[in-house]
Amino acid sequence: MSHLRFGPNPIRSTYLIGRAGFVACHQFSLLQRMDVLTLADPGATFLLNSPYPPDEVWDRLPVEVQRTIIDKGLDLWVIDAYRVAREAGLGARINTVMQPCFFALSGLMPKDEAIAAIKKSIEKTYGKRGETVVARNFAAVDLALGALNRVDVPGHVTATQSRRPPVPREAPDFVQRVTARMLAGEGDLLPVSALPVDGTFPTGTARWEKRTLALEIPVWDPSICIDCGKCALVCPHAAIRMNVFEPSALEHAPEGFKSKEFSSRDHPGLSLTIQVAPDDCTGCGVCVDVCPVRSKEEAKHKAIDMEPIGPHLEGERASFDFFLQIAPPAPALLGIDSVKSSQVREPLFEFSGACAGCGETPYLKLLTQLFGDRIIVANATGCSSIYGGNLPTTPWTANAEGRGPAWANSLFEDNAEFGLGMRLAADRQNARARQLLEKLAPQVGADLVRQILAAEGDEAADDAAIALQRERIIELESRLARLPVASAEATELLDLADSLVPKSVWIVGGDGWAYDIGSGGLDHVLASGRNVNVLVLDTEVYSNTGGQASKATPRGAVAKFAVRGKPTGKKDLGMMAMAYGNIYVAQVAMGGNDMQTVRAFLEAEAWPGPSLIIAYSTCIAHGIDMATSMSHQKDAVRSGYWPLYGFDPGMVDRPFHLDSKKPSLPVKEFAGQEARFAMLARTAPDRFSTLMEDSQTDVDERWRLYEQLAGVERTAPDLPEPPGLEGTDGGASLEEGD
Amino acid sequence: MSHLRFGPNPIRSTYLIGRAGFVACHQFSLLQRMDVLTLADPGATFLLNSPYPPDEVWDRLPVEVQRTIIDKGLDLWVIDAYRVAREAGLGARINTVMQPCFFALSGLMPKDEAIAAIKKSIEKTYGKRGETVVARNFAAVDLALGALNRVDVPGHVTATQSRRPPVPREAPDFVQRVTARMLAGEGDLLPVSALPVDGTFPTGTARWEKRTLALEIPVWDPSICIDCGKCALVCPHAAIRMNVFEPSALEHAPEGFKSKEFSSRDHPGLSLTIQVAPDDCTGCGVCVDVCPVRSKEEAKHKAIDMEPIGPHLEGERASFDFFLQIAPPAPALLGIDSVKSSQVREPLFEFSGACAGCGETPYLKLLTQLFGDRIIVANATGCSSIYGGNLPTTPWTANAEGRGPAWANSLFEDNAEFGLGMRLAADRQNARARQLLEKLAPQVGADLVRQILAAEGDEAADDAAIALQRERIIELESRLARLPVASAEATELLDLADSLVPKSVWIVGGDGWAYDIGSGGLDHVLASGRNVNVLVLDTEVYSNTGGQASKATPRGAVAKFAVRGKPTGKKDLGMMAMAYGNIYVAQVAMGGNDMQTVRAFLEAEAWPGPSLIIAYSTCIAHGIDMATSMSHQKDAVRSGYWPLYGFDPGMVDRPFHLDSKKPSLPVKEFAGQEARFAMLARTAPDRFSTLMEDSQTDVDERWRLYEQLAGVERTAPDLPEPPGLEGTDGGASLEEGD
Repeated sequence: MSHLRFGPNPIRSTYLIGRAGFVACHQFSLLQRMDVLTLADPGATFLLNSPYPPDEVWDRLPVEVQRTIIDKGLDLWVIDAYRVAREAGLGARINTVMQPCFFALSGLMPKDEAIAAIKKSIEKTYGKRGETVVARNFAAVDLALGALNRVDVPGHVTATQSRRPPVPREAPDFVQRVTARMLAGEGDLLPVSALPVDGTFPTGTARWEKRTLALEIPVWDPSICIDCGKCALVCPHAAIRMNVFEPSALEHAPEGFKSKEFSSRDHPGLSLTIQVAPDDCTGCGVCVDVCPVRSKEEAKHKAIDMEPIGPHLEGERASFDFFLQIAPPAPALLGIDSVKSSQVREPLFEFSGACAGCGETPYLKLLTQLFGDRIIVANATGCSSIYGGNLPTTPWTANAEGRGPAWANSLFEDNAEFGLGMRLAADRQNARARQLLEKLAPQVGADLVRQILAAEGDEAADDAAIALQRERIIELESRLARLPVASAEATELLDLADSLVPKSVWIVGGDGWAYDIGSGGLDHVLASGRNVNVLVLDTEVYSNTGGQASKATPRGAVAKFAVRGKPTGKKDLGMMAMAYGNIYVAQVAMGGNDMQTVRAFLEAEAWPGPSLIIAYSTCIAHGIDMATSMSHQKDAVRSGYWPLYGFDPGMVDRPFHLDSKKPSLPVKEFAGQEARFAMLARTAPDRFSTLMEDSQTDVDERWRLYEQLAGVERTAPDLPEPPGLEGTDGGASLEEGD
Repeated sequence: MSHLRFGPNPIRSTYLIGRAGFVACHQFSLLQRMDVLTLADPGATFLLNSPYPPDEVWDRLPVEVQRTIIDKGLDLWVIDAYRVAREAGLGARINTVMQPCFFALSGLMPKDEAIAAIKKSIEKTYGKRGETVVARNFAAVDLALGALNRVDVPGHVTATQSRRPPVPREAPDFVQRVTARMLAGEGDLLPVSALPVDGTFPTGTARWEKRTLALEIPVWDPSICIDCGKCALVCPHAAIRMNVFEPSALEHAPEGFKSKEFSSRDHPGLSLTIQVAPDDCTGCGVCVDVCPVRSKEEAKHKAIDMEPIGPHLEGERASFDFFLQIAPPAPALLGIDSVKSSQVREPLFEFSGACAGCGETPYLKLLTQLFGDRIIVANATGCSSIYGGNLPTTPWTANAEGRGPAWANSLFEDNAEFGLGMRLAADRQNARARQLLEKLAPQVGADLVRQILAAEGDEAADDAAIALQRERIIELESRLARLPVASAEATELLDLADSLVPKSVWIVGGDGWAYDIGSGGLDHVLASGRNVNVLVLDTEVYSNTGGQASKATPRGAVAKFAVRGKPTGKKDLGMMAMAYGNIYVAQVAMGGNDMQTVRAFLEAEAWPGPSLIIAYSTCIAHGIDMATSMSHQKDAVRSGYWPLYGFDPGMVDRPFHLDSKKPSLPVKEFAGQEARFAMLARTAPDRFSTLMEDSQTDVDERWRLYEQLAGVERTAPDLPEPPGLEGTDGGASLEEGD
């Protein structure tokens, strides 16, 4: 919400508008969710971006909006700005469409003067992007006023539908009392007492924030689907999902709920459904881009296609609600080590506020699908901390048993240390619990104690072993609770019993954190030998703060602080980590090889020492069509710009393996597709060529080096020491005298 | 100076002693320099560690000391503690000799009780060092009281010599007024107005602090010397020097001044002198250890031997004073690129307060010999910041023209950035000066301007070119000063003219800085591509703060926070830096290959981008006899524990070269010689063996990897961009719309 204030003299006082003479709503769906007109003055102008024409729009407005317009005597104008932007070649970018409408209606300046000023501003802002971009924006301006229409407002309310409540009635108490008020923009009316005293917020709240942003949503065609699961894997918002189940589960399915036979020789007779969450989908189209199936009959038809949301919304809502209550298959049924099997697992990261097409969030979602019920996440400041803890909601959530990630955000400069602290705490609690178990064996049963102690350990951290251990812990807790005399030690063990289930610590952040501001701490934590897993979501630029160059920014890319194209190459973080010898390192790109990504996550978690995954993350800062996010990743890998590899210190023989093919696409061709590079090609073609030649040299030399590394044999793996209870080492002295 | 207070009841008040009942002086030479007895109460006991027997000592005391002893009626006791310690096998460690004397004389506790308590404390402190160490300390205690003697104090002063003034009379004004007061322990009597307003202290002050610490000093035998210069190279205190000169320079030489013919086919007829600075030598003996010449006639006699200082002191003082006024040869005469030629250059780092035998300071001294007249040093916190800026004196000094290093110390956590700022400032001043030169060419002369602009640049940074450029700058300054109208631009250029001589920026610190606390900043600065030189004085432990483990600490070494021996390997900082591709990297150990060290310094300075030298620095924290400091370095290299290499990005073909031979000494054997490792062998032999096996694996694998790297070819060097005046890049935007 922006408050713009105008007057004949400069306004220097700082206040928000209380009575607005002009209100514009750039997103029609907001009218369904919040009181957009609360500040409108009687007789004010109301400009609405509407997908419906002027003669239809009135009946689409909720009761409350109609009543306010009538009561306040508002002057209602509509424009289908998305249509105009599309026609002008601007995709979904509507700002240059809405701006002239504002000037035309507000009467702040003569219309022609305003249009001329807008065009001058466009030239200044987009000039360096090239003539086409300027021409498209000019066209948008010219088309806008012709598409602007006044609506004849009837004298009475005709709507029957009311505005939706901020959250559904089935939302939990805290969400109703606190989250909903914040969502409704009333957060500053909450008393301090309503907020959690220790700052701990419940997870699983993003699901209650139904944004219904998408103009188009994916529509599934089961008849040609091949069950690959790629669409679900890549969805940045967990808004397209997959499940496999007994056909009997479909008994009470709503009309239109789609399913097909699950193609599996090992598991015949099961059904499969791919289901969209229509209110949570952002319409980015990445799922369609990666769908590998094309209809033989119908040109351009894939197993999923984007279609306007209107006709599908209600049906898909009902289908998604039904889909959610179908239990996922037992973990053992399909295993975990394939894209397909990972995607029938429940995501515990869903519906974040990340950009449409975000390249980071699919990695986080996958992380929760694989280990979500036992992970602890330390999240550095950056995009992932914003969409990860975007008050009032968080996309991190829990499963039906209430298990899910514990998450906290720390600073750019200390997040690795923050996560190490989580690891040390978990290890210390575990060691103390083991000590207490041994002491209390006579009271709680020596057999149970022996089983718990034997099962516990990193090698037992698979789903089945963990499920068994959880059962034992429940039994232990119940026996402890039943002890006739609750000793201090029994009480302490009851408190610590949960620490006997292995915890998986993940330290997450972007390249600004890992390559730059937090790099000293990251190095220190990786060198500690402790069992932490680091996931770097590498967008190669400070995305959240506006696109400043980091040490991950590649040579030749244009970014803030590198407007002439970054002259130096990208820091080879993976190579630096491999220099330690005892760190699991993988470089992945989901769009380049999704199976390699899944395997790297599994291997990183399994390695009992430090692990580092560097994940190529496409970003709006790259200047690409985000619908093709995954295709760009594929080209990054094909060109050798982003080689895929793994270094597994647990492998005695050859710990380093290359997971992508010899580069086959010139780097310059890959780079030319992205505005971050192409800007330089336009503004300084010679410099661009030189830097691209250097980049090609980088690629070629790195590839040769990797090929050599792949041939280096090792004699012994370098296993970390098991953590103990003995505490921080004290001092030792070498002096013999003074 | 320690103040110890005793009483029948605990003393909780905080104050220093004003009237002492007991004064002990553990260093005889202190009596020559300061008023040791100023706090002695009338009738107090005075315990003196004296190399002279009781019947001789009185006549060795300065006038002032004799007078105070008589006037205050002090009870004088002496012991030759160094002799006792030597006899007990403790070398120069006298604390367990002096302690029982204190208890015996002070009467604080019954003597037998005191001796028992001292022995108990010895067992506790040194028990883990092994039985021999405990037995030697016991012996020292037992021998001490027998060697303690009362002195019959005569009734009148017999001495003729007075105490020396804190600094010689020829010291400059500031040293007389300020430094001398601080040296005399009267710093807190100085008014604020006496101190430099901006915190800038004059350099070259350590030379005025004559400590005369050594019991033995090196004595040169010109008859067998081979002119190699190694003794001068390795001296941690610049207290043994070499010069080559025309024999005519010896005309006014004092009696006993030694010289020999300089053996050189290219430069016949010259003389050479190796000269010790007897008041500045600490008697560490490193020079003798490295001397490669053994007499064929006389067993154990080398071209330099350690001898008791007494008979040599006066003569060597006169010789050193004479030596200092012999001009060094012109830089072009011998060149710069050998150990010998480096050592006839004047050191601009001398007489620091570093430990006897320090492994760090020889590198700094060499640095100043090679480039001292044009370096700017950013020094991280650590040993080097302490002995580098050890108020009131500093060892950094200037040559006869007043040119020498500019030095400042910053924090552990920002020193690399601190040095980068120095580089940016120098580059900016240089660019501005070039701009002004071009503008003012008509006034100051186009020819001169052309010559200055043509000569200036990194490729011209050799001695001869710099001398020429300095002449031109002097001419420029004189022309600017003579301009009839001094424009603002001329005034500015006069101010900036010195920046037209290339500056060499050195970022210096220990491993605690480079591997740990400052590692994020170091990485960032190395990645900047700027022309900075980083020198890491790697003692593999936080030396100055008391021996805590850093990421440079090797596997198996015992240190604080690693009392069970560090389980993880040493961080491979050099490999990490090489991953950038455009950083000059060298790993050196002066004792392993001194020529390689000299070459690495020259190559690092010559490379116009970032450079990193990792210098193995033996340290008292290693638990070795520091006299054999350089021999330990040799073994570190021989065992492959510390391979020598260089990576020169300017070499197109094979930028990486190994400079040491295939490891020929088992790592365990090398480690066994040093207490930091041997402690573990004694306390946990199995663990020691395991860790040593792992270390051997590290060594073998690293060697194989280096051999492979030595085979990797490059197609093009990766030269840094020349710095410009255009300023920090502004913002760039990739967005096409909102």
